Amino acid sequence: MAREQWDKIIIGIDPGTNVMGYALLGIRQKKPSLIVMGVLKLSRLDDHYMRLRRIYDRVEALIAEYLPDEMAIEAPFFGKNVQSMLKLGRAQGVAMAAALGRQVPIAEYEPRKIKLAITGNGGASKEQVAAMVQRELRLTPEQMPDLLDATDALAAALCHHYESLKPVKSNGHTSWAAFIAHNPDRVKKP
Amino acid sequence: MAREQWDKIIIGIDPGTNVMGYALLGIRQKKPSLIVMGVLKLSRLDDHYMRLRRIYDRVEALIAEYLPDEMAIEAPFFGKNVQSMLKLGRAQGVAMAAALGRQVPIAEYEPRKIKLAITGNGGASKEQVAAMVQRELRLTPEQMPDLLDATDALAAALCHHYESLKPVKSNGHTSWAAFIAHNPDRVKKP
Repeated sequence: MAREQWDKIIIGIDPGTNVMGYALLGIRQKKPSLIVMGVLKLSRLDDHYMRLRRIYDRVEALIAEYLPDEMAIEAPFFGKNVQSMLKLGRAQGVAMAAALGRQVPIAEYEPRKIKLAITGNGGASKEQVAAMVQRELRLTPEQMPDLLDATDALAAALCHHYESLKPVKSNGHTSWAAFIAHNPDRVKKP
Repeated sequence: MAREQWDKIIIGIDPGTNVMGYALLGIRQKKPSLIVMGVLKLSRLDDHYMRLRRIYDRVEALIAEYLPDEMAIEAPFFGKNVQSMLKLGRAQGVAMAAALGRQVPIAEYEPRKIKLAITGNGGASKEQVAAMVQRELRLTPEQMPDLLDATDALAAALCHHYESLKPVKSNGHTSWAAFIAHNPDRVKKP
């Protein structure tokens, strides 16, 4: 399906220094569909900068090819130790730089929040997340990836889509009716 | 001085989420000279992504303007907590992405290593580092910045320059004399 047939495209990223998962989710008439998902394996590369370079290049290339409107990124706020968080921060930073360089807005979600949005359980396993994503997007077993980093990235994009469907409160009013009820003097008299 | 008059240009970066220091150091006949240094103040920006965006844009612009050959980055390996390390990692990541996107090799140095290389004391204060950098590069008081993040970035670049002057061991041999002594059969007989 060509770019203009989608109302919106969301790129989902699950960044890591060993494996990066990515997914492109197309939205049409509020219905989400998988465009593509995959992983970038980095564990064979010894050099830390080479890994960061590969992450940047891949995310940059995906944005150039699919022209997503928004990026959703899985971002843990806590980690084992400061060293692993520094490495994770760098991996997130280069992925974000690729989006920032092309004016793609970024939204980040904690793993727990994504699991909750997808399965209803913030402590769900990666397998449970993958199974729910498969059902929601009607994916065939052949479409499912070997590595669950890809479905994690897809889940981040899907979580971001669900968030966008939530009603937005503006100035504390949820509807015109509520706004008028609270501001009778701003209604033009006939 | 025009680009081609420098044998090498090193960009020094001291990344942070409140202030980023930067410096361009030109090398000519192994002698270092200041080209420019400054800071990017980020504390007025509430939005975390806007800060990352500003870091990326500035580093990218500096690389485009001065075409440095190498990047030296001050990179602490330890921090107060995982949250601050994640933020620092992101700031480092976007600065690195700007270099990686333009094929500029990156070298990182711990603050302690930079202080040791510049002042001879790994526990030196920022003021001591600034004073030594000023003397080494013969900077006038007017050339010295208000914020020491700029001299920290300059110190990172200068530390990287000193590292490049150290003799490099190749295949374990430090000189042609040593190589010949160990490989008599590879010397062409008259």
